[in-house]
Amino acid sequence: MEFAELLKRRTIRQFTQEPLTKEDLRAILNAARLASCASNRQRLRYLVATEPELVERILPHTAYASLVRPHRDPVPGRTAPVAFIAVLCSCEPGPLLHADAGAAIQSMEFAAWERGIGCCWIGSHKREAVAEILDVAEPERILYLVALGHPAESPVSEDVTDESDISYYLDSRNTLHVPKLTVDAITKWC
Amino acid sequence: MEFAELLKRRTIRQFTQEPLTKEDLRAILNAARLASCASNRQRLRYLVATEPELVERILPHTAYASLVRPHRDPVPGRTAPVAFIAVLCSCEPGPLLHADAGAAIQSMEFAAWERGIGCCWIGSHKREAVAEILDVAEPERILYLVALGHPAESPVSEDVTDESDISYYLDSRNTLHVPKLTVDAITKWC
Repeated sequence: MEFAELLKRRTIRQFTQEPLTKEDLRAILNAARLASCASNRQRLRYLVATEPELVERILPHTAYASLVRPHRDPVPGRTAPVAFIAVLCSCEPGPLLHADAGAAIQSMEFAAWERGIGCCWIGSHKREAVAEILDVAEPERILYLVALGHPAESPVSEDVTDESDISYYLDSRNTLHVPKLTVDAITKWC
Repeated sequence: MEFAELLKRRTIRQFTQEPLTKEDLRAILNAARLASCASNRQRLRYLVATEPELVERILPHTAYASLVRPHRDPVPGRTAPVAFIAVLCSCEPGPLLHADAGAAIQSMEFAAWERGIGCCWIGSHKREAVAEILDVAEPERILYLVALGHPAESPVSEDVTDESDISYYLDSRNTLHVPKLTVDAITKWC
């Protein structure tokens, strides 16, 4: 898939219940490992949860686009993710490690989209509860979760030029609209 | 370009002196604006420096792969970047904003690579000096710089399975080798 197509990727929060193959997940993790990272230190690790009972236990501890109204959390067995990838570190995470995680997750999102798989990067989750479910113990800790599955929604991006217009919204057909500032609105040339 | 090709992207620190077109830079910034970001808040801004005198003034305040030995900084007029993109924010940057920046920079790196352009994501730079050169004043601040230009080197990635083998190194032909941990070395399945 051309990169221009990959850039049409949007965050997916409603999924079909088709499972992901191990080949899909390995391709996604391959994109994570090859992402940019500070000084090539490769401090991030990944924990993959695909077992349905485990995924279902994680779900209530994750939050999805809390700013979207009306709210519509994924429904277990119907629209929930079929896998989670936890992005872990085993040290005190400073700014550079969060930046590394952002790069790795962005790379995973492209790899997933190329294979027809959607992702939701989850910054907001109940860390202690998820760590317990996934058996993550000090010094390891979960930085972020990525929810995955085949898309059961088609969010659309639309260009805006004013910062006051960036709130996403659902239309009457339950389609999520994601306003994105144009290049001109976010760039200065010097 | 297929995503598998984009994943062959490596950080570039030695550049030809061919200038970048505005079209190239706009395509790169387009990838930044469409990257994942927390709650779609789009808090990052971009400052593009292409004017040679300005780029040359920024250069001495930036650091390149300080762990590589023998050290080989880009040389002004010979192997230096021909542009910098500064990634800015106008608020106190917390972990999520650094993660947003990582995602945006990773997306820019792919867009650049697709166009035959190399990048070096720079976390280490003299912030006050660069801010003064680029006329960035509070509340705006520079989170990261990205150095850009057409590659004048061809670093190679190689798979390793042991964390003790990840230091990058230059061989006798001045080729940079970048060891990357395999998927199996960084992943647990549960």
